[in-house]
Order: sequence, then C-alpha cells, then structure tokens
Amino acid sequence: MSCHKLTVPPPKIVDREFVKPLLCGPGPSDVWPSVAQALTKPILSPICDELFKASDDIRAGLQYVFQTRSNLVLALSGSGHTGMETIISNLVGPGETLLIASRGIWDQRAFIMANRYGIKTETVTIPMDMTFTPAQLEPALKKYRPTALFITHGDSSTGTVQNLEGLGDLCHKYGTLLLVDTVVSLVAVPFFMDEWGVDAVYTSTQKAFSGPAGISPVAFSARAEQKIKTRKHDPPFYFDIKLLAQQWNCYGNTRAYHHTISPPLFWALRCCLQEISKETLPATWARHAASTAYFHKRLRENTFGFLIPKPEDRLATVTTVVLPKGYDYLEFVKYMRAKHNILIFAGLGPTAGKALRVGIMGVNSTIKVVDAVVDAMVDTLVALKKSSL
Amino acid sequence: MSCHKLTVPPPKIVDREFVKPLLCGPGPSDVWPSVAQALTKPILSPICDELFKASDDIRAGLQYVFQTRSNLVLALSGSGHTGMETIISNLVGPGETLLIASRGIWDQRAFIMANRYGIKTETVTIPMDMTFTPAQLEPALKKYRPTALFITHGDSSTGTVQNLEGLGDLCHKYGTLLLVDTVVSLVAVPFFMDEWGVDAVYTSTQKAFSGPAGISPVAFSARAEQKIKTRKHDPPFYFDIKLLAQQWNCYGNTRAYHHTISPPLFWALRCCLQEISKETLPATWARHAASTAYFHKRLRENTFGFLIPKPEDRLATVTTVVLPKGYDYLEFVKYMRAKHNILIFAGLGPTAGKALRVGIMGVNSTIKVVDAVVDAMVDTLVALKKSSL
Repeated sequence: MSCHKLTVPPPKIVDREFVKPLLCGPGPSDVWPSVAQALTKPILSPICDELFKASDDIRAGLQYVFQTRSNLVLALSGSGHTGMETIISNLVGPGETLLIASRGIWDQRAFIMANRYGIKTETVTIPMDMTFTPAQLEPALKKYRPTALFITHGDSSTGTVQNLEGLGDLCHKYGTLLLVDTVVSLVAVPFFMDEWGVDAVYTSTQKAFSGPAGISPVAFSARAEQKIKTRKHDPPFYFDIKLLAQQWNCYGNTRAYHHTISPPLFWALRCCLQEISKETLPATWARHAASTAYFHKRLRENTFGFLIPKPEDRLATVTTVVLPKGYDYLEFVKYMRAKHNILIFAGLGPTAGKALRVGIMGVNSTIKVVDAVVDAMVDTLVALKKSSL
Repeated sequence: MSCHKLTVPPPKIVDREFVKPLLCGPGPSDVWPSVAQALTKPILSPICDELFKASDDIRAGLQYVFQTRSNLVLALSGSGHTGMETIISNLVGPGETLLIASRGIWDQRAFIMANRYGIKTETVTIPMDMTFTPAQLEPALKKYRPTALFITHGDSSTGTVQNLEGLGDLCHKYGTLLLVDTVVSLVAVPFFMDEWGVDAVYTSTQKAFSGPAGISPVAFSARAEQKIKTRKHDPPFYFDIKLLAQQWNCYGNTRAYHHTISPPLFWALRCCLQEISKETLPATWARHAASTAYFHKRLRENTFGFLIPKPEDRLATVTTVVLPKGYDYLEFVKYMRAKHNILIFAGLGPTAGKALRVGIMGVNSTIKVVDAVVDAMVDTLVALKKSSL
C-alpha cells in the first residue's frame, strides 16, 4: 500500500471560542448539570451486562414519562424525526391510509414521509393558530376509515397544545390507530398514553427533557403491537420495531444485537429520566405551568402579543409572541443573541414572519430565566424602535 | 388536567458502580482522552453559526480520511447501520439490482436491507476466511449488470480486509456503482476513495476513529451524485442524501434544517478528525500495522492460531484468533472479562464457535495494549486448561 500517495492533505481544525447562549428557542434547550457527567461515563459495548441493566432503567423511566404499562417502550438511535418515521413506517403499510391532522410544520413532515412509503394520505386542515375539536376529525375518520391518525400534541412551529382526551376512543371507533408527536410537550405538559388510548407516541430528549438530541423515546400500545405482529409490509431495517424490541429486551427474553447504541446518549437519556423521576411528573408539570403563566403575564404587561388567540391552546414550552407593528422578526432574534446572548427563534413554516418562538422549558423553566428573557426582550423592543418604525 | 391520576409511579433509577474494561473487541473501542471534553461542549442550536463552522471542519476532515475531493461528504445521525441503509436506499431503486459480495455478516445485513426496498439482490459468495479476486466478481457483474456492487473493506465478523484496488474500474466497465463498508477499516488501513473509484462509502466512529457511536460519516462520488439527482425513487426521509446535503451545506449555498443533529456526537466526531489530522493518516496506518504485526507475532509465539489463512487477508483492526482444541470460546471471553477486565468477543455469524475476535485499534493500537491483551490471553489459556481438556 506504500505506493499510494495522499491526494487530500490533512485540514487544520482549529478550535474557536464562543460563549454559550441561553437556549430559549423551541429547542434544543439547556441540559441538566448532571448530563455532562453522564455523557462522559465510560464507553461500553452494547452487549455488556452494565448496559443491559441501564436499558431496563431507561424503559422503566419511559413507561413513567409516557404513563403507560406497555412493554413495547424503547429509545431509537436518532433524532426526533426517526420517531415520526418509525411509528408511521411500522404501523401503516403501502396502500393503507394515514389521516393527518394538519395545523403546523411537523404534520407536513409526516405527510412527506408517508408518501415516500406509498401510503395514501388524507389531510384535515385547520388554521395554524387553532387546535382540533373531535367534531373536526370525526367526518374524515368515518369517511376514510384510515389505518392511523397522526396528530401533534405540542406544535413547536405554532406554539399550540392539542387536547387529546377522548381522541383515542374516537379513533378506535373507526378501527384507526392514534399516533401522537409529543416532541415538544412531554414532561412539560400532562400526557397519559394508556388513559387517552394513544397507540404510538414518540418524543425527543432536547426539549423539556433537557438532554442532548440524538436518542428518541417511543412507545406502542397493545393495539399497535398487534398491528406490527400481523402487518404484511416491512419498514426500513433501522426503524423496525420488531427487531428493536429484541435489542431492548421488551419481552424479557432477548438482547439481540441490532445496531450499536451510542453510549453517551444512552447514559444521558438515563440521566434525564433519573432527574425527572426524582422531581416527579406532577412537580415538573406544575413548574412549567407556573413559569409559563408568569412569562405570559410579563409579556402582556410589556405590550407583546400572542399569536394563539385562545389561552387554553397555548403550549407551556414554546410561546409564539407577536411584536408591535413595524418590527422585523429576524432582526429582533439577531439582536437578542448579539446583545443579550439569548437564543430565541423567529417563526417557522406557517408562522414565519408572524411571530417569535420563545422556549421556556426543561431546566430553563424558572422565574429567573423568564425574567432574564423578558428583560432582554423589552430592551430589544426599545433598541430597535428607531430603526424599525 | 388536575383530575388525572398517575397510574405508573416513578421508578427508582440507582447508579451502579463498575470498572470500565479495556475495550479490545471488534468495537466499540476506547476513545481519545480529548473526546470526553468534546462531548461536554455546550449544547447549541443546529442552526447557529458556531455549528455551521464546525460542520465545515467535519466535512474537511472527512474528505481527508476518505481521501476524496467530492463535495458530497457528511455525517449521518445514526449508527453505522444508517450508513449501510443510506447508501443502498439512495442509490438503488426498487426493481433495480444490487450485487452483494458475501463473505461475512455485514453483507448479509445489506441483503436484508435491500430486500425491504424491493431491490433485486444477487449474491456472489466465497468462504468466509477468504477475500475476493476481481475474477470472482466479474462474471456476476457481466451477467446481472447491477446498479451497484456492495462489498465490505474490513469485515469485523471474519477479520479479513478486502483489496479494493481495480474494483472501481471493473464495476464502472459494467455501469455498476461500487459501494463500500469501511466501518472497521477506515483510518487504520489505507483507503483511497477517489483513486480506487469508490462511489459510496460509509464508516463509523466507534472503531479506529476512537470516538463514540451514533454519528456515521458517508461520502459519494460524482457518479453516485448523478444517480441521486436522476433517480426516480425516494429513500426514507431520514436517509435522503438530497436533503442532508442541504443541511450539511455540501454545495456551499444552503443550511436547510432537516433534523436536529446531536451536538455531543457532532463535537466528538470533530474531535476525532482533529486527532487523526494531527497524527496524519500515514502515521496512524503505520501505527496500526506495527501494533498488529507485533500482536500476531506474540500470538504465534503462544500457540494461538489464525482463522484467516493468508496473512495479507488479515485485517489490521480485528484479528480472528483460533484457540487450541478443547477450549470453549464463550468461556474464554468471560474469563478475560472476569479476571482481567479486558473485553474481547467470540465469533459472530460464520465465525461463531470458531474464533475469538480481538480488536487492537484506535487509541488501543499500541505495543502496551497488545502486551496486556496477550499476557491475559496466555493466562486464560493456562487457567482454563484443566476445566476444558
């Protein structure tokens, strides 16, 4: 091999200093202090007893945060999008119908994904600043008798939270599975998988979990499991829940190797679940509700508006904030980072140019962070006044 | 929401102490000391300037380790298996033919994956302790004129390294793309993507890179890029290189959001590339060659055998070691962990019950580690003699 010459020289990869901003966008959010330690736990083989035991801890923690007694609970080795693609490709076969409840950008992603698998898609659309009533969904369920309904619980593009109570029963009446995205809601907002009849749900670690992205919890009901067992199609290998259930020992009898799980992310997720279990769900829900109520009160006092008209539709984690007339949203976001080193986002998809997206969640769901963010927003409002009006 | 009661109580997740073993299996391997610091760099949004610049660093580092001037170079957010599934699903459409050069377990995985996409598969199989000659592959290339040939460079299940020189030209003669798995070979063994006419290649970070699993480098030639541009099928959303190229700014004009990249893994990969660029490829290749030559010399001196008959077929990273008659492979592996806290593996797939798999790679590719491993193996040979013979 010595006859070969390198044609591409080694690059000079130089470290650049930066001061971490306060992460108050729709995600990722800041992480638990304990996560740093978890990330640097020793690397182990995925087929060691130590990781087997830790994976049992993770599954118990996930049953708690999803509030489910289902055994088919595990974490995918990928971003939140793998959760979406996994539940769709495992549960809906080519030629079958997926009904999509559309009010933001993530349901559009579900639409794009489903079409790639030859799944028939039907959509019920409402204005992006609203949430669904059962009466808006029932006619389509009745008409299409879809294999599944896809709906987001929290929507980070619009800042709404969907009431899911009763939706499971409604879906099951028409033989439809209920698939729910809780990426930006779980742990911050009450969610009861079993009680609400949710058949498949996924979330991600970089929002209210306050962990790093890259490992995505997912859970399936007995109904969904039955569909997986009897389906006639195969999803992509990497997303196949049949195989992943064996790796994660969901049935207590296998530890079959499927792929190499990332140890740092594995330990980090376990650490987040440890923190959440210690705080308890009722306490974290109450903390998010209190911080957000205080945040909204301070926004109102300072001439900021809300994109979402009904207070009960507003998401506890991500608030879509309307600026007074004449302000430019991207300029506002840039100034917040440049002057205050606070990262907030402008609108996305249907809310682009119409709102800021400010995230108060996870470890940042505190009165102190809310005050820092609102004080900076008020300063930015003053600073940009002349240039914009 | 206060009317709901928790039906699943919080689990008690208790930390367990363990002493990290020396990782000398076929992967994962031990990591660079600098990786721990990289993993705990501050979390940032995937659409921050800081991450954009770091992603350019990563792409430059990947062009170096793959030895390619192609722009279509990036890292997937998943395990090495996403590399396999991504190159197959992006480059071979349903109804098209994938020819698989089969000599281990990973090409069997490629076979399973391809079938899930409706791809026609054809296989050329040789004994698992051999590697391919061009003459063994040409008849099938000629007969099937496949869209692509899949072959592994290093095979961690058998401990062989495939000579790839000339294979690109041979494939291109028949209009076939050359797809190569370098999961367990890259950085340890010379590899020249452009010079060898490789059209798609992937690797992983937890082998000779000495990083954590979960982010998988991939690169495509101009030929492969042309196929991606003109193909009539769509791969899964998460694996779509067309979209990922926009996120990774492969063409210098987009930073389009596709999914949330995991910041700890992102920084860890960058750190590995920094270390490899500093050491330089010729130096790391020479280090692996020297450690392995010394390892094999010590094995021969101590009555161990080699599963792979031809020395030139033996992989520098993973050696398949044959024990004297009467020893049980699983018992040997267990004793090595229990007594010496060294993790080695038994055979897998075609080598199960026939060999140990010992990995000397990445930061562990040193004379010191080789001595520790062989000394422990010799002790194990003695200790288990009475019970086994």
